[in-house]
Amino acid sequence: MSGPLTPEEAQRTEDLYGPLTQSLRKLIDVAIRSEADEPDVARAHELIEHAIELLSARLDPEPFGVRKTTDGGTLTWGNVAIGVRNAIAPPLQVRHDETGRAIAELTLGAAYEGPPGQVHGGVCALLLDHVLGATAHRPGRPAVTGTLTVRYLAPTPLGPLHVEAWIDREEGSKTFAVGHITNTDGTASVRAEGVFIRPKVRA
Amino acid sequence: MSGPLTPEEAQRTEDLYGPLTQSLRKLIDVAIRSEADEPDVARAHELIEHAIELLSARLDPEPFGVRKTTDGGTLTWGNVAIGVRNAIAPPLQVRHDETGRAIAELTLGAAYEGPPGQVHGGVCALLLDHVLGATAHRPGRPAVTGTLTVRYLAPTPLGPLHVEAWIDREEGSKTFAVGHITNTDGTASVRAEGVFIRPKVRA
Repeated sequence: MSGPLTPEEAQRTEDLYGPLTQSLRKLIDVAIRSEADEPDVARAHELIEHAIELLSARLDPEPFGVRKTTDGGTLTWGNVAIGVRNAIAPPLQVRHDETGRAIAELTLGAAYEGPPGQVHGGVCALLLDHVLGATAHRPGRPAVTGTLTVRYLAPTPLGPLHVEAWIDREEGSKTFAVGHITNTDGTASVRAEGVFIRPKVRA
Repeated sequence: MSGPLTPEEAQRTEDLYGPLTQSLRKLIDVAIRSEADEPDVARAHELIEHAIELLSARLDPEPFGVRKTTDGGTLTWGNVAIGVRNAIAPPLQVRHDETGRAIAELTLGAAYEGPPGQVHGGVCALLLDHVLGATAHRPGRPAVTGTLTVRYLAPTPLGPLHVEAWIDREEGSKTFAVGHITNTDGTASVRAEGVFIRPKVRA
Protein backbone atom coordinates (compact mmCIF):
# COMPACT_ATOMS: atom_id res chain seq x y z
CA MET A 1 0.00 0.00 0.00
CA SER A 2 1.31 3.44 -0.98
CA GLY A 3 2.16 6.16 1.50
CA PRO A 4 0.00 9.21 2.21
CA LEU A 5 -0.74 11.59 -0.68
CA THR A 6 -0.51 15.36 -0.57
CA PRO A 7 -3.95 17.01 -0.91
CA GLU A 8 -2.89 18.12 -4.42
CA GLU A 9 -1.96 14.56 -5.45
CA ALA A 10 -5.27 13.33 -4.04
CA GLN A 11 -7.21 15.92 -6.00
CA ARG A 12 -5.33 15.17 -9.23
CA THR A 13 -5.99 11.45 -8.87
CA GLU A 14 -9.66 12.07 -8.21
CA ASP A 15 -9.93 14.41 -11.21
CA LEU A 16 -8.30 11.72 -13.37
CA TYR A 17 -10.15 8.62 -12.15
CA GLY A 18 -13.54 10.11 -11.19
CA PRO A 19 -14.62 10.72 -14.83
CA LEU A 20 -13.02 7.42 -15.99
CA THR A 21 -15.03 5.53 -13.36
CA GLN A 22 -18.18 7.37 -14.42
CA SER A 23 -17.57 6.17 -18.00
CA LEU A 24 -16.98 2.67 -16.70
CA ARG A 25 -20.41 2.72 -15.01
CA LYS A 26 -21.91 3.58 -18.39
CA LEU A 27 -19.93 0.78 -20.05
CA ILE A 28 -21.27 -1.75 -17.50
CA ASP A 29 -24.80 -0.60 -18.32
CA VAL A 30 -24.49 -0.79 -22.13
CA ALA A 31 -22.74 -4.18 -21.95
CA ILE A 32 -26.01 -5.50 -20.49
CA ARG A 33 -28.38 -3.72 -22.90
CA SER A 34 -26.36 -3.77 -26.14
CA GLU A 35 -27.82 -5.28 -29.28
CA ALA A 36 -24.90 -4.14 -31.43
CA ASP A 37 -23.55 -6.20 -34.35
CA GLU A 38 -21.05 -8.93 -33.48
CA PRO A 39 -17.99 -7.21 -35.06
CA ASP A 40 -18.71 -4.06 -33.00
CA VAL A 41 -18.98 -6.11 -29.80
CA ALA A 42 -15.73 -7.91 -30.63
CA ARG A 43 -14.00 -4.56 -31.28
CA ALA A 44 -15.36 -3.16 -27.98
CA HIS A 45 -13.90 -6.21 -26.23
CA GLU A 46 -10.49 -5.49 -27.78
CA LEU A 47 -10.62 -1.88 -26.57
CA ILE A 48 -11.49 -3.05 -23.05
CA GLU A 49 -8.52 -5.45 -23.09
CA HIS A 50 -6.26 -2.60 -24.22
CA ALA A 51 -7.56 -0.32 -21.45
CA ILE A 52 -6.82 -3.07 -18.89
CA GLU A 53 -3.27 -3.29 -20.21
CA LEU A 54 -2.71 0.46 -19.92
CA LEU A 55 -4.11 0.70 -16.38
CA SER A 56 -2.16 -2.40 -15.30
CA ALA A 57 1.23 -0.82 -16.20
CA ARG A 58 1.62 -0.24 -12.47
CA LEU A 59 -0.81 -1.75 -9.95
CA ASP A 60 -1.13 -1.51 -6.21
CA PRO A 61 -0.83 -5.18 -5.16
CA GLU A 62 -3.20 -4.56 -2.23
CA PRO A 63 -6.93 -4.33 -2.69
CA PHE A 64 -7.14 -1.59 0.01
CA GLY A 65 -9.19 1.20 -1.51
CA VAL A 66 -8.53 3.62 1.32
CA ARG A 67 -5.74 6.20 1.21
CA LYS A 68 -4.54 8.74 3.73
CA THR A 69 -3.53 12.29 2.87
CA THR A 70 -0.63 14.14 4.47
CA ASP A 71 -3.10 16.56 6.09
CA GLY A 72 -4.89 13.75 7.94
CA GLY A 73 -7.71 13.21 5.47
CA THR A 74 -9.07 9.89 4.23
CA LEU A 75 -9.81 9.03 0.60
CA THR A 76 -12.30 6.31 -0.14
CA TRP A 77 -11.34 5.03 -3.56
CA GLY A 78 -12.33 1.39 -3.62
CA ASN A 79 -15.36 1.05 -1.36
CA VAL A 80 -18.15 -0.83 -3.17
CA ALA A 81 -20.83 1.59 -1.92
CA ILE A 82 -19.10 4.97 -2.07
CA GLY A 83 -15.70 4.56 -3.79
CA VAL A 84 -14.93 7.26 -6.38
CA ARG A 85 -12.74 4.77 -8.28
CA ASN A 86 -15.13 1.83 -7.91
CA ALA A 87 -17.48 1.50 -10.89
CA ILE A 88 -19.73 -0.86 -8.92
CA ALA A 89 -20.50 1.94 -6.42
CA PRO A 90 -23.58 3.87 -7.61
CA PRO A 91 -21.80 5.84 -5.90
CA LEU A 92 -23.73 6.59 -2.73
CA GLN A 93 -23.22 10.15 -1.51
CA VAL A 94 -24.45 10.30 2.04
CA ARG A 95 -25.25 13.68 3.59
CA HIS A 96 -26.42 14.44 7.11
CA ASP A 97 -29.28 16.87 7.69
CA GLU A 98 -29.47 19.24 10.69
CA THR A 99 -31.16 16.54 12.85
CA GLY A 100 -28.37 14.04 12.13
CA ARG A 101 -30.36 11.91 9.69
CA ALA A 102 -28.26 10.22 6.99
CA ILE A 103 -29.71 10.72 3.52
CA ALA A 104 -28.70 9.54 0.05
CA GLU A 105 -30.36 10.16 -3.30
CA LEU A 106 -29.37 7.95 -6.22
CA THR A 107 -30.56 6.51 -9.49
CA LEU A 108 -30.12 2.83 -10.25
CA GLY A 109 -30.21 1.33 -13.74
CA ALA A 110 -29.97 -2.09 -15.39
CA ALA A 111 -26.78 -3.07 -13.55
CA TYR A 112 -28.57 -3.25 -10.18
CA GLU A 113 -31.50 -5.35 -11.33
CA GLY A 114 -32.95 -8.41 -9.62
CA PRO A 115 -36.51 -9.19 -10.77
CA PRO A 116 -37.24 -7.52 -14.16
CA GLY A 117 -37.45 -3.74 -13.72
CA GLN A 118 -36.78 -3.93 -9.98
CA VAL A 119 -33.75 -3.35 -7.78
CA HIS A 120 -32.26 -6.63 -6.45
CA GLY A 121 -33.21 -7.19 -2.81
CA GLY A 122 -29.53 -7.64 -1.95
CA VAL A 123 -28.69 -4.23 -3.41
CA CYS A 124 -31.43 -2.71 -1.21
CA ALA A 125 -29.72 -4.39 1.76
CA LEU A 126 -26.34 -2.95 0.66
CA LEU A 127 -27.76 0.58 0.43
CA LEU A 128 -29.50 0.33 3.80
CA ASP A 129 -26.45 -1.21 5.49
CA HIS A 130 -24.38 1.73 4.36
CA VAL A 131 -26.84 4.55 5.10
CA LEU A 132 -27.92 3.14 8.49
CA GLY A 133 -24.24 2.63 9.34
CA ALA A 134 -23.51 6.27 8.45
CA THR A 135 -25.63 7.41 11.42
CA ALA A 136 -23.17 5.66 13.74
CA HIS A 137 -19.87 6.85 12.24
CA ARG A 138 -17.72 9.32 14.18
CA PRO A 139 -14.70 11.14 12.64
CA GLY A 140 -11.94 8.55 12.29
CA ARG A 141 -14.13 5.86 13.89
CA PRO A 142 -16.27 4.12 11.29
CA ALA A 143 -18.85 1.78 12.81
CA VAL A 144 -19.20 -1.84 11.73
CA THR A 145 -22.47 -3.68 11.30
CA GLY A 146 -23.48 -6.04 14.10
CA THR A 147 -26.93 -7.06 12.85
CA LEU A 148 -29.07 -5.88 9.96
CA THR A 149 -32.73 -6.79 9.46
CA VAL A 150 -34.34 -5.87 6.16
CA ARG A 151 -38.08 -6.05 5.48
CA TYR A 152 -39.29 -6.00 1.88
CA LEU A 153 -42.73 -4.38 1.71
CA ALA A 154 -43.08 -3.80 -2.02
CA PRO A 155 -40.94 -4.02 -5.17
CA THR A 156 -38.32 -1.25 -5.47
CA PRO A 157 -38.43 0.01 -9.07
CA LEU A 158 -35.20 0.83 -10.92
CA GLY A 159 -34.85 4.61 -11.25
CA PRO A 160 -34.48 7.46 -8.75
CA LEU A 161 -34.47 6.41 -5.10
CA HIS A 162 -34.21 8.06 -1.70
CA VAL A 163 -32.54 6.29 1.22
CA GLU A 164 -32.85 7.70 4.71
CA ALA A 165 -31.80 6.53 8.17
CA TRP A 166 -31.81 7.83 11.71
CA ILE A 167 -30.77 6.78 15.19
CA ASP A 168 -33.41 5.06 17.28
CA ARG A 169 -31.20 4.85 20.39
CA GLU A 170 -27.57 4.46 21.51
CA GLU A 171 -26.09 2.23 24.21
CA GLY A 172 -22.36 2.78 24.76
CA SER A 173 -20.56 1.95 21.53
CA LYS A 174 -23.75 0.50 20.01
CA THR A 175 -26.02 2.51 17.74
CA PHE A 176 -29.52 1.20 16.96
CA ALA A 177 -30.50 2.72 13.63
CA VAL A 178 -33.60 2.46 11.45
CA GLY A 179 -34.30 3.58 7.90
CA HIS A 180 -36.01 2.96 4.59
CA ILE A 181 -35.87 3.25 0.82
CA THR A 182 -38.58 5.28 -0.89
CA ASN A 183 -39.21 5.80 -4.59
CA THR A 184 -40.47 8.90 -6.41
CA ASP A 185 -44.06 8.51 -5.24
CA GLY A 186 -42.90 8.44 -1.61
CA THR A 187 -43.77 4.79 -0.97
CA ALA A 188 -41.36 3.03 1.40
CA SER A 189 -40.59 -0.25 -0.36
CA VAL A 190 -37.94 -1.56 2.05
CA ARG A 191 -37.42 -0.90 5.76
CA ALA A 192 -34.41 -1.86 7.87
CA GLU A 193 -33.14 -1.80 11.40
CA GLY A 194 -29.55 -2.40 12.39
CA VAL A 195 -27.12 -2.46 15.26
CA PHE A 196 -23.80 -0.77 14.50
CA ILE A 197 -20.74 -0.98 16.69
CA ARG A 198 -17.86 1.47 16.98
CA PRO A 199 -14.69 -0.54 17.60
CA LYS A 200 -12.86 0.47 20.77
CA VAL A 201 -10.08 3.04 20.28
CA ARG A 202 -6.72 1.44 21.04
CA ALA A 203 -4.63 3.23 23.67
CA MET B 1 -37.77 -5.74 -24.88
CA SER B 2 -36.85 -8.16 -27.63
CA GLY B 3 -38.75 -11.35 -28.37
CA PRO B 4 -37.61 -14.86 -27.45
CA LEU B 5 -34.27 -16.06 -28.81
CA THR B 6 -33.60 -19.42 -30.38
CA PRO B 7 -31.27 -21.58 -28.24
CA GLU B 8 -28.56 -20.99 -30.89
CA GLU B 9 -28.94 -17.20 -30.71
CA ALA B 10 -28.85 -17.40 -26.92
CA GLN B 11 -25.64 -19.43 -27.00
CA ARG B 12 -23.98 -17.11 -29.51
CA THR B 13 -24.84 -14.06 -27.42
CA GLU B 14 -23.49 -15.71 -24.30
CA ASP B 15 -20.28 -16.74 -26.10
CA LEU B 16 -19.86 -13.13 -27.27
CA TYR B 17 -20.72 -11.24 -24.09
CA GLY B 18 -19.55 -13.71 -21.41
CA PRO B 19 -15.82 -13.13 -22.11
CA LEU B 20 -16.37 -9.37 -22.66
CA THR B 21 -18.06 -9.14 -19.25
CA GLN B 22 -15.23 -11.12 -17.69
CA SER B 23 -12.78 -8.54 -19.10
CA LEU B 24 -14.97 -5.75 -17.78
CA ARG B 25 -14.73 -7.26 -14.27
CA LYS B 26 -10.96 -7.08 -14.59
CA LEU B 27 -11.16 -3.49 -15.85
CA ILE B 28 -13.25 -2.50 -12.79
CA ASP B 29 -10.58 -4.05 -10.54
CA VAL B 30 -7.57 -2.37 -12.17
CA ALA B 31 -9.36 1.02 -12.31
CA ILE B 32 -9.31 0.90 -8.49
CA ARG B 33 -5.73 -0.36 -8.08
CA SER B 34 -3.97 1.39 -10.99
CA GLU B 35 -0.97 3.60 -10.37
CA ALA B 36 -0.28 4.08 -14.09
CA ASP B 37 1.05 7.33 -15.55
CA GLU B 38 -1.52 10.02 -16.31
CA PRO B 39 -1.25 9.78 -20.13
CA ASP B 40 -1.93 6.02 -19.94
CA VAL B 41 -4.97 6.59 -17.74
CA ALA B 42 -6.25 9.28 -20.10
CA ARG B 43 -5.75 6.92 -23.07
CA ALA B 44 -7.58 4.10 -21.22
CA HIS B 45 -10.47 6.50 -20.63
CA GLU B 46 -10.65 7.26 -24.38
CA LEU B 47 -10.75 3.54 -25.17
CA ILE B 48 -13.58 3.04 -22.66
CA GLU B 49 -15.54 5.90 -24.30
CA HIS B 50 -15.02 4.29 -27.71
CA ALA B 51 -16.20 0.89 -26.41
CA ILE B 52 -19.36 2.57 -25.02
CA GLU B 53 -20.01 4.09 -28.44
CA LEU B 54 -19.65 0.74 -30.22
CA LEU B 55 -21.90 -1.13 -27.80
CA SER B 56 -24.48 1.67 -27.87
CA ALA B 57 -24.97 1.39 -31.65
CA ARG B 58 -28.19 -0.46 -30.80
CA LEU B 59 -29.47 -0.63 -27.24
CA ASP B 60 -32.43 -2.33 -25.63
CA PRO B 61 -34.33 0.63 -24.13
CA GLU B 62 -35.53 -1.54 -21.23
CA PRO B 63 -33.26 -2.44 -18.35
CA PHE B 64 -34.78 -5.94 -18.17
CA GLY B 65 -31.89 -8.38 -18.05
CA VAL B 66 -34.01 -11.47 -18.47
CA ARG B 67 -34.68 -13.10 -21.83
CA LYS B 68 -36.79 -16.05 -22.86
CA THR B 69 -35.75 -18.68 -25.39
CA THR B 70 -38.05 -20.27 -27.92
CA ASP B 71 -37.67 -23.61 -26.12
CA GLY B 72 -39.04 -22.21 -22.86
CA GLY B 73 -35.71 -21.45 -21.19
CA THR B 74 -34.80 -18.32 -19.26
CA LEU B 75 -31.57 -16.36 -19.69
CA THR B 76 -30.38 -14.20 -16.83
CA TRP B 77 -28.24 -11.56 -18.47
CA GLY B 78 -28.55 -8.49 -16.28
CA ASN B 79 -29.08 -9.75 -12.73
CA VAL B 80 -26.65 -8.03 -10.36
CA ALA B 81 -25.85 -11.29 -8.52
CA ILE B 82 -25.76 -13.87 -11.32
CA GLY B 83 -26.04 -12.05 -14.69
CA VAL B 84 -23.61 -13.31 -17.34
CA ARG B 85 -23.65 -9.85 -18.97
CA ASN B 86 -23.48 -7.91 -15.70
CA ALA B 87 -19.90 -7.03 -14.71
CA ILE B 88 -21.04 -6.19 -11.17
CA ALA B 89 -22.12 -9.82 -10.64
CA PRO B 90 -19.18 -11.83 -9.20
CA PRO B 91 -21.02 -13.82 -10.82
CA LEU B 92 -22.59 -16.14 -8.27
CA GLN B 93 -23.04 -19.67 -9.57
CA VAL B 94 -25.42 -21.43 -7.25
CA ARG B 95 -25.55 -25.24 -7.26
CA HIS B 96 -27.79 -27.52 -5.25
CA ASP B 97 -26.35 -30.57 -3.51
CA GLU B 98 -28.23 -33.86 -3.10
CA THR B 99 -29.86 -32.66 0.14
CA GLY B 100 -31.20 -29.50 -1.54
CA ARG B 101 -28.67 -27.13 0.01
CA ALA B 102 -27.79 -24.12 -2.13
CA ILE B 103 -24.05 -23.59 -2.40
CA ALA B 104 -21.88 -20.98 -4.12
CA GLU B 105 -18.11 -20.64 -4.21
CA LEU B 106 -16.63 -17.35 -5.32
CA THR B 107 -13.61 -15.09 -5.01
CA LEU B 108 -14.04 -11.40 -4.26
CA GLY B 109 -11.40 -8.75 -4.96
CA ALA B 110 -10.91 -5.01 -4.51
CA ALA B 111 -14.23 -4.09 -6.13
CA TYR B 112 -16.25 -5.63 -3.27
CA GLU B 113 -14.35 -3.99 -0.43
CA GLY B 114 -15.82 -2.21 2.59
CA PRO B 115 -13.31 -1.90 5.47
CA PRO B 116 -9.72 -2.29 4.17
CA GLY B 117 -9.10 -5.90 3.11
CA GLN B 118 -12.64 -6.97 4.01
CA VAL B 119 -15.82 -7.63 2.06
CA HIS B 120 -18.43 -4.85 2.53
CA GLY B 121 -21.19 -5.95 4.92
CA GLY B 122 -23.78 -5.01 2.31
CA VAL B 123 -22.15 -7.33 -0.24
CA CYS B 124 -22.35 -10.16 2.32
CA ALA B 125 -26.07 -9.37 2.64
CA LEU B 126 -26.44 -9.47 -1.18
CA LEU B 127 -24.73 -12.88 -1.40
CA LEU B 128 -26.80 -14.32 1.43
CA ASP B 129 -30.06 -12.88 0.08
CA HIS B 130 -29.40 -14.62 -3.21
CA VAL B 131 -28.20 -17.98 -1.92
CA LEU B 132 -30.88 -18.25 0.81
CA GLY B 133 -33.48 -17.26 -1.80
CA ALA B 134 -32.24 -20.01 -4.12
CA THR B 135 -33.46 -22.65 -1.63
CA ALA B 136 -37.02 -21.40 -2.19
CA HIS B 137 -37.06 -21.11 -6.00
CA ARG B 138 -39.14 -23.57 -8.03
CA PRO B 139 -38.89 -23.92 -11.82
CA GLY B 140 -40.52 -20.81 -13.31
CA ARG B 141 -41.45 -19.54 -9.84
CA PRO B 142 -38.61 -17.48 -8.34
CA ALA B 143 -39.21 -16.56 -4.71
CA VAL B 144 -38.96 -12.98 -3.46
CA THR B 145 -37.45 -11.93 -0.16
CA GLY B 146 -39.87 -11.12 2.65
CA THR B 147 -37.40 -10.53 5.47
CA LEU B 148 -33.66 -10.98 5.74
CA THR B 149 -31.69 -10.82 8.99
CA VAL B 150 -27.91 -10.78 8.76
CA ARG B 151 -25.57 -11.24 11.74
CA TYR B 152 -21.94 -10.19 11.39
CA LEU B 153 -19.78 -12.38 13.62
CA ALA B 154 -16.31 -11.58 12.29
CA PRO B 155 -14.72 -9.69 9.37
CA THR B 156 -15.10 -11.44 5.99
CA PRO B 157 -11.71 -11.24 4.25
CA LEU B 158 -11.51 -10.54 0.52
CA GLY B 159 -10.51 -13.71 -1.33
CA PRO B 160 -12.14 -17.13 -1.77
CA LEU B 161 -15.48 -17.57 0.01
CA HIS B 162 -18.08 -20.28 0.44
CA VAL B 163 -21.78 -19.39 0.79
CA GLU B 164 -24.25 -22.05 1.84
CA ALA B 165 -27.96 -22.06 2.69
CA TRP B 166 -30.64 -24.57 3.55
CA ILE B 167 -34.33 -24.70 4.36
CA ASP B 168 -35.22 -24.56 8.03
CA ARG B 169 -38.96 -25.04 7.43
CA GLU B 170 -41.74 -24.29 4.94
CA GLU B 171 -45.26 -22.95 5.53
CA GLY B 172 -47.41 -22.78 2.40
CA SER B 173 -45.73 -20.40 -0.03
CA LYS B 174 -43.23 -19.26 2.62
CA THR B 175 -39.75 -20.74 2.93
CA PHE B 176 -37.72 -20.07 6.08
CA ALA B 177 -34.07 -20.40 5.09
CA VAL B 178 -30.80 -20.07 6.98
CA GLY B 179 -27.20 -19.89 5.84
CA HIS B 180 -23.74 -18.49 6.27
CA ILE B 181 -20.54 -17.29 4.61
CA THR B 182 -17.32 -19.10 5.48
CA ASN B 183 -13.76 -18.32 4.43
CA THR B 184 -10.91 -20.68 3.63
CA ASP B 185 -10.24 -21.60 7.28
CA GLY B 186 -13.89 -22.65 7.68
CA THR B 187 -14.87 -19.81 10.03
CA ALA B 188 -18.44 -18.58 9.56
CA SER B 189 -18.09 -14.79 9.46
CA VAL B 190 -21.71 -13.93 8.63
CA ARG B 191 -24.94 -15.79 9.33
CA ALA B 192 -28.38 -15.03 7.94
CA GLU B 193 -31.97 -16.14 8.17
CA GLY B 194 -34.67 -15.12 5.76
CA VAL B 195 -38.29 -15.60 4.81
CA PHE B 196 -38.84 -16.06 1.07
CA ILE B 197 -42.22 -15.98 -0.61
CA ARG B 198 -43.29 -17.63 -3.85
CA PRO B 199 -45.81 -15.34 -5.56
CA LYS B 200 -49.14 -17.02 -6.29
CA VAL B 201 -49.49 -18.50 -9.76
CA ARG B 202 -52.13 -16.55 -11.70
CA ALA B 203 -54.92 -18.64 -13.17
